Amino acid sequence: MAHIELPPEVPGIIGLLNSFPETAKPLNQLAQVLLRGDSTLTEGERELIAGFVSSKNDCYFCSNSHLSASNYFLNNDLFYDKGHISGMEKINLSPKMESLLHISSKVQQGGKNVSHKDIEHAKENGATDKEIHDTVLIAAAFCMYNRYVDGLATFQPTEKKVYDEIGERIGKNGY
Amino acid sequence: MAHIELPPEVPGIIGLLNSFPETAKPLNQLAQVLLRGDSTLTEGERELIAGFVSSKNDCYFCSNSHLSASNYFLNNDLFYDKGHISGMEKINLSPKMESLLHISSKVQQGGKNVSHKDIEHAKENGATDKEIHDTVLIAAAFCMYNRYVDGLATFQPTEKKVYDEIGERIGKNGY
Repeated sequence: MAHIELPPEVPGIIGLLNSFPETAKPLNQLAQVLLRGDSTLTEGERELIAGFVSSKNDCYFCSNSHLSASNYFLNNDLFYDKGHISGMEKINLSPKMESLLHISSKVQQGGKNVSHKDIEHAKENGATDKEIHDTVLIAAAFCMYNRYVDGLATFQPTEKKVYDEIGERIGKNGY
Repeated sequence: MAHIELPPEVPGIIGLLNSFPETAKPLNQLAQVLLRGDSTLTEGERELIAGFVSSKNDCYFCSNSHLSASNYFLNNDLFYDKGHISGMEKINLSPKMESLLHISSKVQQGGKNVSHKDIEHAKENGATDKEIHDTVLIAAAFCMYNRYVDGLATFQPTEKKVYDEIGERIGKNGY
């Protein structure tokens, strides 16, 4: 049961956004700019960073919603459960994406964990300042969304089918 | 030196907001709704939650900006340095605010750390669902802002005077 009264069985952040429209507006706009706005990172790459960080925060709803959105764009089959993303071993990450995912995992642990060496490595692999900025802010933002969803103990379905549908919907329509 | 090129000596999140206006817009709007919007928590109480969570994340710039804003509203003299907020022992927290700060420190550690008992305790002390919601989202949002500021290694002045000015400015003008 959620920690506060929410519409029953409306999953994850969706029930929160419906119930609290004043905060929903900037929360949706931030996701839209970060994950669908102008960027040299593809939508699939950005959704992968979002899902990856959410998995590090063990947020089942956010992990699988955003991994499913990345599946929609990148034609992968990633799914998170119990500390592990299945399917990661089959996907081909560019050295740039590998170094950006590494930075995002450092941000998840805490901002000060990002080292000069992590940044240099990403730049050597072709990451621009804007791509590093966006990676850090996507990772930071999902440290917020994940805490919002889990900190209020929202309802989180476990069926993969539900997340396939959410992923396709946010892939097509955005936030 | 910051991890990416930013205007020199523009402190903390301010340089990031100036340099990246597309994300600045929802980031400012979220802070405005959370810290200045309609709420039965006062502006000073909400700024205190923001500064307190930032101190737990050891973000010097955000801690002192928001503690100074809470000083502006509540006439306190809180300042953060090296893991400690000086002046906390002198302020009189209501049992409700104590239990909300406790929830915010749980959110800082991770959303799943918020227990049913933490929530019950806050409700027994008079916290409403909306106040619990806002506390969780303020705490979650500062886990984002803090990681954004520190994850890009922004310039952070150390003079208390600078934060007194920032606190008064955001106290008067908002976000």
